[in-house]
Amino acid sequence: MFKKILYPTDFSDVSKKAIDYIKQLRERGSETVIVLHVINQRGMQAIERYASGNSIEIEQRIMDDAKQQIKVIEDELKKSGFKVKSMIKTGIPMREILKAEEKEENVSVIVIGSHGKSNLEDIFLGSVSEKVSRKCKSPVLIVKR
Amino acid sequence: MFKKILYPTDFSDVSKKAIDYIKQLRERGSETVIVLHVINQRGMQAIERYASGNSIEIEQRIMDDAKQQIKVIEDELKKSGFKVKSMIKTGIPMREILKAEEKEENVSVIVIGSHGKSNLEDIFLGSVSEKVSRKCKSPVLIVKR
Repeated sequence: MFKKILYPTDFSDVSKKAIDYIKQLRERGSETVIVLHVINQRGMQAIERYASGNSIEIEQRIMDDAKQQIKVIEDELKKSGFKVKSMIKTGIPMREILKAEEKEENVSVIVIGSHGKSNLEDIFLGSVSEKVSRKCKSPVLIVKR
Repeated sequence: MFKKILYPTDFSDVSKKAIDYIKQLRERGSETVIVLHVINQRGMQAIERYASGNSIEIEQRIMDDAKQQIKVIEDELKKSGFKVKSMIKTGIPMREILKAEEKEENVSVIVIGSHGKSNLEDIFLGSVSEKVSRKCKSPVLIVKR
């Protein structure tokens, strides 16, 4: 029933806590994890506007950092016996998560941390997990801090 | 990890769909289900204001109906091998669910339907599942329509 897990992560602590639950699901029959990290397009625009330095270089650095972090997660999940597919997208996190749910067929559950890195944005605009759980089709397991 | 499940239900269709997931968790090691139905205090007040007839009688009828419905769920879950404890409370659903989470120690997961019976209220005020997932401590599995 929880065969294929979609796991969106912003590499925050609560996001990492979700990995513990995913591993438990492995023992209970889950097989595949789609790890998805979305580089927030709005954050990127802000950086480009205010940061000194070449914007392409900055984008490259952010992408390299994301690749490194997603690799660590991928290795950890593979060690637990999962088939893992990881993806890095740039865009609006909620939208990219819903797109991935639609594109990857037969997602059985989305496992997601309750709050992301940017607490302030969560408070005023609602958290990504809330928005995702409102719009997605699959059941959602929201892991708390 | 999902040993003790708190299952709040308003007896809606999506709430009943959640039972399928709970049963799957049984096969994966879950042991106990707390079934909680909250008679919405605000709905009750409206009925008392506008319904003709004795309000105590109406309350009694609502309570009897809830008892019958919760009994059906209890039997179904017991048949699947769960230890079941069911509770009917009168109050504000979100608050009673959070109270139950606190009182019942060691809840490992809350399994809840994404939307309740009253769609309109959900749209304007947010669904109970959303409010619960925002405030509770345990992970929440939100089951969709």
